[in-house]
Amino acid sequence: MDYQAVLEQVAADVAPLVGSGRPAEYIPALAAVDPYRFGMAVADVDGEVHGVGDWQEPFSVQSITKVFTLALVLALGTGDLWKYVGREPSGNPFNSLVQLEYENGIPRNPFINAGALVVTDRLQALTGDARGTLLEFLRAESGNDGLEFDPVVAESESAHGDRNFALAYFMASCGNMRGPVSRVLEHYFWQCSVAMNCRDLVLAARFLARHGVRADGSRLLTRSEAKQVNAVMLTCGTYDAAGDFAYRVGLPGKSGVGGEIIAVMPGQYTLCVWSPGLDARGNSVAGVAALDRFTTLTGLSVF
Amino acid sequence: MDYQAVLEQVAADVAPLVGSGRPAEYIPALAAVDPYRFGMAVADVDGEVHGVGDWQEPFSVQSITKVFTLALVLALGTGDLWKYVGREPSGNPFNSLVQLEYENGIPRNPFINAGALVVTDRLQALTGDARGTLLEFLRAESGNDGLEFDPVVAESESAHGDRNFALAYFMASCGNMRGPVSRVLEHYFWQCSVAMNCRDLVLAARFLARHGVRADGSRLLTRSEAKQVNAVMLTCGTYDAAGDFAYRVGLPGKSGVGGEIIAVMPGQYTLCVWSPGLDARGNSVAGVAALDRFTTLTGLSVF
Amino acid sequence: MDYQAVLEQVAADVAPLVGSGRPAEYIPALAAVDPYRFGMAVADVDGEVHGVGDWQEPFSVQSITKVFTLALVLALGTGDLWKYVGREPSGNPFNSLVQLEYENGIPRNPFINAGALVVTDRLQALTGDARGTLLEFLRAESGNDGLEFDPVVAESESAHGDRNFALAYFMASCGNMRGPVSRVLEHYFWQCSVAMNCRDLVLAARFLARHGVRADGSRLLTRSEAKQVNAVMLTCGTYDAAGDFAYRVGLPGKSGVGGEIIAVMPGQYTLCVWSPGLDARGNSVAGVAALDRFTTLTGLSVF
Amino acid sequence: MDYQAVLEQVAADVAPLVGSGRPAEYIPALAAVDPYRFGMAVADVDGEVHGVGDWQEPFSVQSITKVFTLALVLALGTGDLWKYVGREPSGNPFNSLVQLEYENGIPRNPFINAGALVVTDRLQALTGDARGTLLEFLRAESGNDGLEFDPVVAESESAHGDRNFALAYFMASCGNMRGPVSRVLEHYFWQCSVAMNCRDLVLAARFLARHGVRADGSRLLTRSEAKQVNAVMLTCGTYDAAGDFAYRVGLPGKSGVGGEIIAVMPGQYTLCVWSPGLDARGNSVAGVAALDRFTTLTGLSVF
Repeated sequence: MDYQAVLEQVAADVAPLVGSGRPAEYIPALAAVDPYRFGMAVADVDGEVHGVGDWQEPFSVQSITKVFTLALVLALGTGDLWKYVGREPSGNPFNSLVQLEYENGIPRNPFINAGALVVTDRLQALTGDARGTLLEFLRAESGNDGLEFDPVVAESESAHGDRNFALAYFMASCGNMRGPVSRVLEHYFWQCSVAMNCRDLVLAARFLARHGVRADGSRLLTRSEAKQVNAVMLTCGTYDAAGDFAYRVGLPGKSGVGGEIIAVMPGQYTLCVWSPGLDARGNSVAGVAALDRFTTLTGLSVF
Repeated sequence: MDYQAVLEQVAADVAPLVGSGRPAEYIPALAAVDPYRFGMAVADVDGEVHGVGDWQEPFSVQSITKVFTLALVLALGTGDLWKYVGREPSGNPFNSLVQLEYENGIPRNPFINAGALVVTDRLQALTGDARGTLLEFLRAESGNDGLEFDPVVAESESAHGDRNFALAYFMASCGNMRGPVSRVLEHYFWQCSVAMNCRDLVLAARFLARHGVRADGSRLLTRSEAKQVNAVMLTCGTYDAAGDFAYRVGLPGKSGVGGEIIAVMPGQYTLCVWSPGLDARGNSVAGVAALDRFTTLTGLSVF
Repeated sequence: MDYQAVLEQVAADVAPLVGSGRPAEYIPALAAVDPYRFGMAVADVDGEVHGVGDWQEPFSVQSITKVFTLALVLALGTGDLWKYVGREPSGNPFNSLVQLEYENGIPRNPFINAGALVVTDRLQALTGDARGTLLEFLRAESGNDGLEFDPVVAESESAHGDRNFALAYFMASCGNMRGPVSRVLEHYFWQCSVAMNCRDLVLAARFLARHGVRADGSRLLTRSEAKQVNAVMLTCGTYDAAGDFAYRVGLPGKSGVGGEIIAVMPGQYTLCVWSPGLDARGNSVAGVAALDRFTTLTGLSVF
Repeated sequence: MDYQAVLEQVAADVAPLVGSGRPAEYIPALAAVDPYRFGMAVADVDGEVHGVGDWQEPFSVQSITKVFTLALVLALGTGDLWKYVGREPSGNPFNSLVQLEYENGIPRNPFINAGALVVTDRLQALTGDARGTLLEFLRAESGNDGLEFDPVVAESESAHGDRNFALAYFMASCGNMRGPVSRVLEHYFWQCSVAMNCRDLVLAARFLARHGVRADGSRLLTRSEAKQVNAVMLTCGTYDAAGDFAYRVGLPGKSGVGGEIIAVMPGQYTLCVWSPGLDARGNSVAGVAALDRFTTLTGLSVF
């Protein structure tokens, strides 16, 4: 398939939507991004990458990191993660405390904020350096040694992180937080601040299209674990819009508040799209449309 | 692939689980079923069927009909169905009123009871005979003209249907019920009572593996609509266990309270398994395990 | 105290508010009422009545009947009522199903619709004629043999009663409805339709100011039971505005959707006010203001 | 009325219940208290005090302080308190986040933890020293200059205060916290740690029975404000058991997790009872029974 041609067609088709929606504004670093940016890239399982638009422009990866920290804990952990976090869609906004209270501090899944905090807490316990482990992994998979945290973004997240503090303290009150709340949150905010571009991300996520095999040929996850991460992405990866995303796009995907989305066609390719304008449920307007268009043009979705 | 050998392996592997869980007991017709029954069948896209165990034993299809009535409304309707029912996982039990009240009488998806009542209401409005339309379709696709409603089951469902009456009256109070509540419920209860076996069901569901094409080669759904039904099955088909089902099985699927489950591998096959013992969330214990085993042995899942 | 003078002062003070708010419009009989009506009456424990404005104009008593049916069940029952309905404020709208589902079909208190349906169900079981028993009681206490149900209102309530049907069927599904749903609702709708004026109501409620003693000197409730009914009125009588009503008025009170409110100062007097314009929580705007003014001018509240 | 005789009768009547229930155990200082303690005192409006049992034994006043901090903010504030906290019963446990999220960070009332944190935040803003202002007031009203905070209790509360941190950070994320979370919580924990006995408390609460007038004859609250505080106590003072407390006791009251309860009969008396065993909703088993008995024996309740 001529992915480059498809990408160019997609970019042309969704151009009218670029700039729609509203960029996240809760921290200055995100609010300052030009809402008219649009980039998209695809990598096949052999690592050939194609891109269009602002695909080489770095942005804060934010919630996309939740996929990588989950995979790292599954790879390094002792298999008990699912005692501390569920794998069901929440049907609620990503930062809600309601369900967490009804369910005694066990988050519904690893892709809402509370669940990602549990994953970071576990990764910290397993490695002693959650954020460092993540950064090393992302550099290795993307082949980009220049990847870095953005301290301004990290500090800004922390300064505006009251809701995340509430989530973490609530879980601590239920006994579902191993490390000190302040330490877990520090690693969480730094993780979210990593700056990457679409090229970096399609390469970094490639192990999910390769059934668990890393760029260097070593195995991060078993085939079964890779299937599981993809399944959780499909049912839980786009907040309370997961059903609609599956309906329209038909791929496992994970979105971030900066307007980025990654998606995986197991055995075939990984996608990344970035455009800052968000819809009411926090997903990139042009981004979802572009993925929808891509699976329609190629006829390649999981359904 | 030698599906017959796989089915026999699966049956042997899950034999220790058959009889686990509890059959549904809210109506006598379901409570009377032997909990040690287990049947499973697979059909490829060309209609070749293999089966194991009690695969030719009929049972009440119950909630499985929700898939067929949804497809019929999409095929016959004017495209406005999604104004009256959503397509997001509910994260709640199948008969809950809580979310329905918070969301003004618009059910989360067509596979919880409230959503299926909306679909039946629409099908009735489109055809004047919702249950008859369904029966005719099931007979045609399965090639089994002997399929019938079971009046004892239908009456029994109605006599124990207070919760469904509550759901329908609630939606009526929100203006989301076109026909009279009593009429819609009558059709709903009769639909659920259709008696079919695993063979019938894998054939009847085959259009979902054939991207919308019926047994006779005519098209029921567009390719895009077929993808959408499969997506909704994956995110919403197994009540509040959809995430876990995707994680374990990795296929779009729909379960019924009689212990039956259908599943679809687009482009490849349809599966049906039946074993009456249910887990706490209403899905067949041996049935889910059998599907899990099938996708593991074949390596064929959507992820 | 010169109650007549106080009433006239109150009427003058709240005159600017009469016509504010919106009358209930869900049935034609209520929507047709002139929103500029205002009447108020007070009765002392000896039955001396004073009134002002439209105090002799009859209106549908609606939810006010919930106080009388509760008292009748406490008087006639076997003491087990509180197994079927609670006595805690609900903190939710009067017709909500959410809490009812979380609490397994046991309504929070007898003054929300679900709770009143349970009370009517019990009264029906105790007497064989819930609505007849109520009417006889109201005639005796008010000394007005002309009190009647309004069949137009009753039929209209039934025709617009989908939400109440949903509540009753839900409770039936939880085993908390003794009689057939249709029979209980019929009595409930007829009860709500009784036409009374402010004079009738202050006399009919007088047993609550007389610690349980009826107009004829016989005892309906023990002193302790009368205290209990007043307590439930104070904490639950004005829907989800009970706290605000206690804060402003400082008396046990019960409101109805027609814009009527009764209030009780134990040992001293009963009040009734009627003005159809409702606030967002379903209580009469001018009515609450008038009661607030009355307790301020007289210095007589329970606090 | 011979209050001493009544108290002795009450103590005798409830003696079989002393030791029932479970003392709070979340901090060592509370868990260590002898569960068989029982003390009770009454003060009339002129300050004459009677007591029985362990009425002169000090204990942690805990949530009782919420009444005093509310009164102080009403007395010192600019009248805008009710923009930041409601006055409706919550119908939920005292430390729940669910309602707080649905209602955008505005707590239902000042007597659940979230509401009390808002009150402390306001008191801190008004005085610069919330806890000091409270202590000074309690000393003045009780005439006991020896009243002190218990630093061990305060530190212990803080160490076990994850849930309160979650509440405060959540409100901060909604913009409903003026001061830094850590400062507000510090004052809150210290306030709760004040050690007082039944005698101290009936005297300190006496302004609520005196329609707002302090021990020295000066006015703390207007008559209307005093009525309002009593109303909020009645509808919200005993967590999610406020309806039952009103039904049984019939007085405005406020309970604390140490097993203490204060109650007010406006114009007549204040009561305090202490016995550590709590029921499932956090109120003293013997304490509620004693208040119930007191109002029954004296015939003095607000209803």
